[in-house]
Amino acid sequence: MAPAIATGSHTDAIPFSGKYDGVVGVLGAIEAINALNRTGFKPRRSLEVIMFTSEEPTRFGISCLGSRLLAGLPNMKSSLERVVDKDNISFPDAAAIAGYEFALETLLEVPLKEDTYAAFVELHIEQGPILEEEGIAIGIVTAIAAPASLKVDFRGDGGHAGAVLMPSRNDAGLAAAELALAVEKHVLETQSADTVGTTGVLELYPGAVNSIPSAAHIEIDIRDIDEQRRNSVIQHIKVSASEIATRRHVHLDFQIVTQDPPAASSQKIVKAIESASQQLGLTSKHMISRAYHDSLFMARVSPMGMIFIPCYRGYSHRPDEFASREDLSNGIKVLALSLLALSSDL
Amino acid sequence: MAPAIATGSHTDAIPFSGKYDGVVGVLGAIEAINALNRTGFKPRRSLEVIMFTSEEPTRFGISCLGSRLLAGLPNMKSSLERVVDKDNISFPDAAAIAGYEFALETLLEVPLKEDTYAAFVELHIEQGPILEEEGIAIGIVTAIAAPASLKVDFRGDGGHAGAVLMPSRNDAGLAAAELALAVEKHVLETQSADTVGTTGVLELYPGAVNSIPSAAHIEIDIRDIDEQRRNSVIQHIKVSASEIATRRHVHLDFQIVTQDPPAASSQKIVKAIESASQQLGLTSKHMISRAYHDSLFMARVSPMGMIFIPCYRGYSHRPDEFASREDLSNGIKVLALSLLALSSDL
Repeated sequence: MAPAIATGSHTDAIPFSGKYDGVVGVLGAIEAINALNRTGFKPRRSLEVIMFTSEEPTRFGISCLGSRLLAGLPNMKSSLERVVDKDNISFPDAAAIAGYEFALETLLEVPLKEDTYAAFVELHIEQGPILEEEGIAIGIVTAIAAPASLKVDFRGDGGHAGAVLMPSRNDAGLAAAELALAVEKHVLETQSADTVGTTGVLELYPGAVNSIPSAAHIEIDIRDIDEQRRNSVIQHIKVSASEIATRRHVHLDFQIVTQDPPAASSQKIVKAIESASQQLGLTSKHMISRAYHDSLFMARVSPMGMIFIPCYRGYSHRPDEFASREDLSNGIKVLALSLLALSSDL
Repeated sequence: MAPAIATGSHTDAIPFSGKYDGVVGVLGAIEAINALNRTGFKPRRSLEVIMFTSEEPTRFGISCLGSRLLAGLPNMKSSLERVVDKDNISFPDAAAIAGYEFALETLLEVPLKEDTYAAFVELHIEQGPILEEEGIAIGIVTAIAAPASLKVDFRGDGGHAGAVLMPSRNDAGLAAAELALAVEKHVLETQSADTVGTTGVLELYPGAVNSIPSAAHIEIDIRDIDEQRRNSVIQHIKVSASEIATRRHVHLDFQIVTQDPPAASSQKIVKAIESASQQLGLTSKHMISRAYHDSLFMARVSPMGMIFIPCYRGYSHRPDEFASREDLSNGIKVLALSLLALSSDL
């Protein structure tokens, strides 16, 4: 049997976010296949919908857990044995609590064979402002930027905010504040519009107004379409973290959690999306995805392509994330016609 | 009847802290009175033990809630109506949940009359390293430093850490990081060893590694033995917060939660503690309390004095906070003899 054509995305979300990121690509996939069914179309390859789990790194700091495992990424077992959530619950314990006691063993059996899918296509909101600003209906993703994430912990002696005088302090919170600003500085020093860096998590311990922070935990996200430039920013951040820890007499734990290479779309899928847009009379443009997606990892085991639709002001990971009915409809139609083309061809 | 003599402290604690801060002054007060009872001593004035609630500002950001109310501080009603905890639960709601439905009305009836107590004496660990380093058994507090606390909120647009490019960002977390470092800078600029400033709380929202912080909440503690110098530091911090908010295009909410004046001990009580130490053959020294205490507010309605005992390395607000059996015993004996002297005299 010829390898199938797959489409899908994820339905998990970060806290306090919107309802379009991911969900559009799952419900849209089902609707696209329904639409093809309604026309009486008979594909020559099977069409499959995938709903990935834990695309967002919220709980364990590892993004795209489902697609990483399907893609058979190396070192997943040791990563999953090591990670803990913010309540210090390990991944194996969390899996057991959720009723998946043998998760680690069985998870390692899930990687797809390279010829499982002839194509994977993901429909997604842009999560950026370009399509809306330029009035374009469809973004055709040609590559996904290379993401990396870091976890940094500083530890000092803490103490009472009134009683410990300034020269006797080694404040872990101020070390973290300096590093967050250093992340911004090193990203801006690249003078590249395509390099972004974010300190999205900064937690102080014990976190009381009258206590000097004895520990600070920060998580940093760095992305670029140029993998080498991104890795160079990570090195600069690491040097800054060491310098800050030495100067402020705090202990440093610096961990690179993920450091993934970029992925290029399949030319065949790019062309299928282009043709579909043209058939529907929709404007389209080629784009880089600066956000990462399950497609980044699916690209390792399948030809990959992505369809972007505009979203309100480029907002994402916010409650006011929004895509219009018309843009959703356009995206689903383009997906349906792309699946039709890809599944017709043996 | 002659006004009574009171002694006591608090038993609440910040998260992840020790078991001596406050507790020593409550259990020590009971033991001191027990010891006086065992000798058959008959006081000419009543001896009372007070156990204060919520000395630590952990939940609502207001320190010394019990003693502030007993002292009849102004604006307590409006403060308590306005404050919320980190889960956005108001003080009146929290009181109702705890079974004190009419708390706000009844709380305003608790202020002491000025002649209720002829003296208030508080036994406490030093929460600093001086007594231990100098090998001195008893610290006699002559004044309590003037504390202030600030709450600052920055709000920006947030967004996806991959998709929003650096020039389009207004990162509330980086504004907070800058302000935490500005607090340290303004304190050090006073070039006074007695000025301290701490950013003990720094919280990011939504707090996900792949989201640009759309909001940051920080809480700052500033203290000095010189009230004017402390107030000048607060002004500098306020100017920095505005400058940061303008430059980073974030919304600023700056609130001075408390800004209390310092308090001087009663000379009569200082002399009673001196005499008690001498009778027991204990070394003693006069000290400033850089930590605040319920005594700071009791000083408004009663003559006030404090007895400090050494604690391990000056550690406090940490799990390894510790005072030795011998130092505890010395402190309780000095308290007992001080209460004896103060309650013998009509």
